[in-house]
Amino acid sequence: MSLLDVSSFAAGEWIAPGAGARNIASAVTGAPLAQAGNDALDVQAMLAYARDTGGSALRALTFHDRARMIKALATHLGQHKQALYDLSFETGATQSDHMIDIDGGIGTMFVFASKGRREMPDAKVYLDGEVEQLSRNGTFLGQHICTPLQGVAVHINAFNFPVWGMLEKLAPSLLAGVPAIVKPATATCYVTELAVRLMLDSGILPAGALQLVSGGLGDMLDHLTMQDVVSFTGSAQTALKLRQNPVILEHSIRFVAEQDSLNASILGPDAIPGTPEFDLFIKEVSREMTTKAGQKCTAVRRIITPESQSEAVIEALSARLAKTTIGDPRLESTRMGALVSNSQKRDVLEKAAILATEATPVYGNPDDFAVEGADAEKGAFVPPMLFHCENPDAASRVHDTEAFGPVSTVMGYRDLHHAVTLANRGEGSLVASCITNDPEVAREVALGSGAYHGRIYFNNRASMKESTGHGSPLPHMVHGGPGRAGGGEELGGIRGVKHYMQRTAIQGSPDILAAIGEQWVPGGSEVAAPAHPFTRKFGELAIGETLNSPSRQVTLEDIEHFAKFTGDTFYAHMDDAAAKRNPFFPGRVAHGYLLLSFAAGLFVEPNEGPVLANTGLDNLRFMKPVSAGDSIKVRLSVKKKTPRNDEYGEVRWHVTLTNQDDEKVAEYELLTMNAF
Amino acid sequence: MSLLDVSSFAAGEWIAPGAGARNIASAVTGAPLAQAGNDALDVQAMLAYARDTGGSALRALTFHDRARMIKALATHLGQHKQALYDLSFETGATQSDHMIDIDGGIGTMFVFASKGRREMPDAKVYLDGEVEQLSRNGTFLGQHICTPLQGVAVHINAFNFPVWGMLEKLAPSLLAGVPAIVKPATATCYVTELAVRLMLDSGILPAGALQLVSGGLGDMLDHLTMQDVVSFTGSAQTALKLRQNPVILEHSIRFVAEQDSLNASILGPDAIPGTPEFDLFIKEVSREMTTKAGQKCTAVRRIITPESQSEAVIEALSARLAKTTIGDPRLESTRMGALVSNSQKRDVLEKAAILATEATPVYGNPDDFAVEGADAEKGAFVPPMLFHCENPDAASRVHDTEAFGPVSTVMGYRDLHHAVTLANRGEGSLVASCITNDPEVAREVALGSGAYHGRIYFNNRASMKESTGHGSPLPHMVHGGPGRAGGGEELGGIRGVKHYMQRTAIQGSPDILAAIGEQWVPGGSEVAAPAHPFTRKFGELAIGETLNSPSRQVTLEDIEHFAKFTGDTFYAHMDDAAAKRNPFFPGRVAHGYLLLSFAAGLFVEPNEGPVLANTGLDNLRFMKPVSAGDSIKVRLSVKKKTPRNDEYGEVRWHVTLTNQDDEKVAEYELLTMNAF
Repeated sequence: MSLLDVSSFAAGEWIAPGAGARNIASAVTGAPLAQAGNDALDVQAMLAYARDTGGSALRALTFHDRARMIKALATHLGQHKQALYDLSFETGATQSDHMIDIDGGIGTMFVFASKGRREMPDAKVYLDGEVEQLSRNGTFLGQHICTPLQGVAVHINAFNFPVWGMLEKLAPSLLAGVPAIVKPATATCYVTELAVRLMLDSGILPAGALQLVSGGLGDMLDHLTMQDVVSFTGSAQTALKLRQNPVILEHSIRFVAEQDSLNASILGPDAIPGTPEFDLFIKEVSREMTTKAGQKCTAVRRIITPESQSEAVIEALSARLAKTTIGDPRLESTRMGALVSNSQKRDVLEKAAILATEATPVYGNPDDFAVEGADAEKGAFVPPMLFHCENPDAASRVHDTEAFGPVSTVMGYRDLHHAVTLANRGEGSLVASCITNDPEVAREVALGSGAYHGRIYFNNRASMKESTGHGSPLPHMVHGGPGRAGGGEELGGIRGVKHYMQRTAIQGSPDILAAIGEQWVPGGSEVAAPAHPFTRKFGELAIGETLNSPSRQVTLEDIEHFAKFTGDTFYAHMDDAAAKRNPFFPGRVAHGYLLLSFAAGLFVEPNEGPVLANTGLDNLRFMKPVSAGDSIKVRLSVKKKTPRNDEYGEVRWHVTLTNQDDEKVAEYELLTMNAF
Repeated sequence: MSLLDVSSFAAGEWIAPGAGARNIASAVTGAPLAQAGNDALDVQAMLAYARDTGGSALRALTFHDRARMIKALATHLGQHKQALYDLSFETGATQSDHMIDIDGGIGTMFVFASKGRREMPDAKVYLDGEVEQLSRNGTFLGQHICTPLQGVAVHINAFNFPVWGMLEKLAPSLLAGVPAIVKPATATCYVTELAVRLMLDSGILPAGALQLVSGGLGDMLDHLTMQDVVSFTGSAQTALKLRQNPVILEHSIRFVAEQDSLNASILGPDAIPGTPEFDLFIKEVSREMTTKAGQKCTAVRRIITPESQSEAVIEALSARLAKTTIGDPRLESTRMGALVSNSQKRDVLEKAAILATEATPVYGNPDDFAVEGADAEKGAFVPPMLFHCENPDAASRVHDTEAFGPVSTVMGYRDLHHAVTLANRGEGSLVASCITNDPEVAREVALGSGAYHGRIYFNNRASMKESTGHGSPLPHMVHGGPGRAGGGEELGGIRGVKHYMQRTAIQGSPDILAAIGEQWVPGGSEVAAPAHPFTRKFGELAIGETLNSPSRQVTLEDIEHFAKFTGDTFYAHMDDAAAKRNPFFPGRVAHGYLLLSFAAGLFVEPNEGPVLANTGLDNLRFMKPVSAGDSIKVRLSVKKKTPRNDEYGEVRWHVTLTNQDDEKVAEYELLTMNAF
C-alpha cells in the first residue's frame, strides 16, 4: 500500500511532502501509513500571506459576519464527517472517541458561531465592560474596547484530538478576526489535513484565513512580531522550549499554553458505597481512564478517596475496568482502542514504572492482556492500569508524573482539607472534580482548590443525567490551568475570543466614544428624529436618534387609582406618615411601575408600524421619588442596533425620565424588535 | 549630614541597611542622601511569612472587608502626606509632581476601595460573568469564579513614582486577598519606605500583608511557586532578564510587565492652528514632556503632526517650552525639577544623541540652559529637548529609543493612515493620543491603532475642561500595553484585581453553584419563607427564600383600562387584526407594564416593614405573550444580598411570572433596599 501524502497549505498552495518528510505509522497495525513534512516550506511567505491577505479580509468583516462564516464551516464539516471518522480509526480512536474529537470539534464551532451572534455586536469593535465615568459633568469618559490583533495566530496542536484540537483554537481566532496557521502534531496530522481540505474546498473562508503546516514549523517562531499569538497544546517540555524563544520573550508575544496536568477527582466524604454518587464516581473515573485510551489532557490521573473508601473504590473500579474490551477501534465491541504510536506506548510504560516506585499496581498488567481483532505486539495497545499510593503525603512522583495513557493512581485522604491539599499537590491542573451531594463540601473544595485549577467539575444525583463529564472541555467554559498546566486559558466563550484581540482603554468625549463603539453614550449629541422613531424601520434609525416627549402630571388620584387597580398598596404609596419615616421618601410617592407605564404612554406611537414588540428592559434605576403634583417627561434615544434575523433586529433605547425641574427620576434601557 | 537609613520590612521586622548597602544621592544636589540594602535579608522567610501569615489573614476577609481596609489606608496616608511631600523633593520632583505621585497614589486606593464595595460582592468568591446553560433542563450549569491566589505578589517598581507605583499595584493585590512584597527602585526607595512605614504603623493591615525590600531582591524570584505573581515596572532590559528566570518559565508564573514605550500623540488633520484643538495639543504635549522631567512611562515621545503643521507645532511648542523654569523643585517658580540621578542624566543625554542621528534638534541645549536655585553641574538637571525627524518612514531609532527625560521628536504625516502607521511603529505602547474634534478621525485611529496600544486618549473642545491628560493612568482604565510595552495590564478597575486571582470554571447542579457563589441560581432549591419575605429584615432573609403568589386573571377590560389610563395604546394591545399580523403575537395582548404592575400587586406586602424601596429592575425579558383570559402568578426568590451601609442593604430578587399553564411569561430581577 502506498503512503498517504500529507500536504501543507502555504500561501495559497498545497505543498506535498518533500525533503525531510517523516513517515507516520498506523496506531492499530504499526505499519507505515502516511508521510508528512517538507524542509522547503517557506514559513515567512506563510506569515506574510496570513497577515497581508487573511488578516485584512477578516478585519473587513463584522463579528456577526465571522460568526455566520464559522457556522457555515461547521455545517460543511458536519456534512462530511464520515470521511473524518473513516480516517481517524488509524489513530487508534474508537467511534466514541470520534464523537469527542470530530463531533465535539464541530459542536465547538457552532457554540462560538452562536455566541458570536448573541454576545458580540454586528460591528468591528467589541466593547469590554461599561462606560466609566471619569469626570463630574460627563464630558470625558472611558470605555474599554477590543480590536483584532493585526498579525497571525500560530496554533500548535497535540496529537490526541486532530480535529477538536484545531477547531477549538480556530473558532475563536476567526471570530476575533485573526488568520490562523495550524500546525498539528505529526502523529495524527493526516486527519487534520483532511479537515483543513474540507474547510478550504468549501470556499467559505477568505484567502489567507487558514493555512496548514504538516510536519515541522521550521523557524517560523523566529519571525513572529508583537501582533502575533502562539497557542500551544502539548507537553510541558516542548512548551518550555518554545517559551524560551528569544523573539517571543523580547517582543512580549502572547504565548497561550495548555500542557501537562495531573488532574484529580475527589470522592466526597458523603459519597459512600450505596449512594448514587459512589456509583457515579466509579463510572466517571473509569470513563476518564479509558476514553481515547487515556490520552486526554483532562483525564483523571489521581483518584482521591476517603481513606476508608480506598479499598471499595479499587474493587469497584477494577471490576468495571475488567469489562473494557481492548482491540481494533473499528470493532463495535471495542471499548478502548490503541495509543497513538508505539513510541507513545513506550513512554506510558516508562511513566507507569515511575509511578510504581511510589504506588502499588492493583489492576492491569501490560504484559498480559487481551486484544481483540488486532495484533497486540504490533499495534500500540496497553491495558488500563490502576495504582494505589498508600502514603500520598510522602510521595511526589504520583503528583508530578503524567503517564499519558489509561493510567491512574488511587490515594486516600483523612479529611476534606487533606483532600484539597492532595489535589493542589498537582501544582496547577486543567480540571479537578468532586463527586458530592453536599453543597458545603463543594464550597470548601472550590475555595480551597480554585486557585490551583482551571476548572472544577462537580457532579451528583441532581446533575448526573445532564452532566457532560469531568474530562470534557466545553466551549462555554475556560479550558486551561495555572502552573504545570501552562498558565493559559482557551475557550470560555467570548473570553477565548479576546485572546486574539487587544484590549484598549479609550478615553474621550461622549461623541468620540459613540463613534468608536457604534452605540450612543450618555452625554452624546442627540440626533433629531425626522419622524416619530417608532415609525422608522430598523435600517432607518440612526444611533442617537432621539424623541423628547411632552410632560404629564402625576396626581394623587393617579397614585390611588393605580394602587387599587394593580393591588400594589405598598405603604410608601399609601401612607404619608409611614413613607416619611423611610430614609428614601419625602412622603407618599408614585409607584415606579406607574412611572414606567405613564412613560410608555408618553413615547409610544400607537399605530401599526415597524416596532413589533417590547421584548425587555435593562438597568432600570429609580433615582428620585415622584410625588403627587410632579410632572414627568421622557427622552428616548436609539442606543444600539443588533440584527437578529432576516426580518427584524433588536433596538436598544436609552430612556431618561425627568421631572418638572429637569431632575432625573429614572433611567433604563428598553428593548424592542423592529422590522427591517 | 548623616545618611538616611532606608530599612526593609521582612517577616515582621524592620531590617536596617547592612552588608552590601548602596548609597543614594539627592537628585537636586548630587550629594549622598541615604543608604539601602542588606545582603543578609532572608528572602525565603519573607515569602513564607507572606504566604502563611499574610495570605491566610487576607483570605479570611471578604472583598468588602478588604475594600474598607484599603480606604482606611488611603485615608491614613492622606493625613500624613505632607511628610511624603517633604521627602520627595529630594527625588527631583516638584510639588505638581508630588500631586501625581502621592495624591495620585492615594486617589487610586480610594477608587479601588470604592469599586470593591460597588462592583464586588461582600463575599470571598467573585463571580466572573453569568451562569452558563450547559444542559437542556438546567440541572447542570456553569459559572466562572475568581478566588485569590494562595501565594504572594512580588511588586518590582520603577524609580519615577515611589508612592503611586507602589499603591497602584498594592490596592488590587490587597483587594484580591493576596499579600505583597514591595521592592521599589533603589534610587527613590526612601520615599516608598516612608509610605510603607506609615501604612504599617497605622495598624490597619493584618500581619504579613505587606513587606518591603529596600535594596536588592537577592534570589527571591528563584523561590517563587505557581501561586505567586510578579508585577514589574521598569526597563525592557531588566524585564527580559526576569522573564528568562527558569523558575518563572518552568512554573508558568504570572509575570505582568510594564516596560518601555515610545508613546505617540497625533494632531488630528482638523486641528489646524486657530482651533481649540491645536492649542490643546501644544499644551498637552508640553506638559507631558516636562512633568516629572519627562520621567514618565506614558510621556509623549513622538509628536505626529500633519506635514503641513510640523513647523507651526515646533514653533508653538518651543515657545511654550521656553517658559518652563528649571530649578530646585522646592521653589514655587520651578516648573520642571531634576532627573532622579546623574546616571539617569547621562543615559538621557546618550539616548538624545542617538535620536540626533535621525532627527534635528530644534529646541533645548543641554550644554546651555538656566537652572534656578540649584547647581546645574551637581544636580541631575537637563532642559526640555525637542527634535524634528524629516523622514520618519526611513527612521528607526526615533521609534525605538526611549530617552527617559524631557525629550520628544516631531514627525510629519501625509494622511491619517500614515499617522496610524507611524504611531504603530512603536511596536506596542502604553498610550497613544489624538487631539481631534472629528469623531470619524477618532474611529479610524482607534480601529487602525487599537491593537498596538494599551490606551488611546482622545481630547478636544468638548472634553478638554474635564480631561485627565494623555499621561495619566487612571485606576478605572487598564494601564499597560502590548509588545515593547511589556504585554502586561494593570489597573482597569476590577480587571486589575483579577490579575491576583485565579479564574476557575465551575460546573455542577444549581444548588452546588449557589453554595459556592453565595447567590441563588436558576433551578436551585426553594427555601420556604417562614413569613412574607417583605416582613423580614436584611439579615434574616436566606438566599433562595421564596414567595409563591396566588394567581390573577388578566381581562380584556384590564387591558383596555390600562391603555386608557396610561395612554399606551400601542396597536398590539388594541387592534386584534394588526397584532395578528405581527410575528410575535397571537392577537391583542396585555401590556408588559400591566403584567409588571399586577405582579407587584401580587407579591407586595403593603404594611410598613423592612423593605424600604424598590430601587430598580434588571434583565427583564418578556417570554410569552399574555392574552385576555390568561392568568399570571409570581415566584419571588432572594437571589443575592449586598450590604450598602450601616442601615440597609440591597436585596436582588429573582422574579418569574408564569401563566395558567405554568409557562414562563416574564423573568426579571428586582432590587429593593432592606433595613438591617
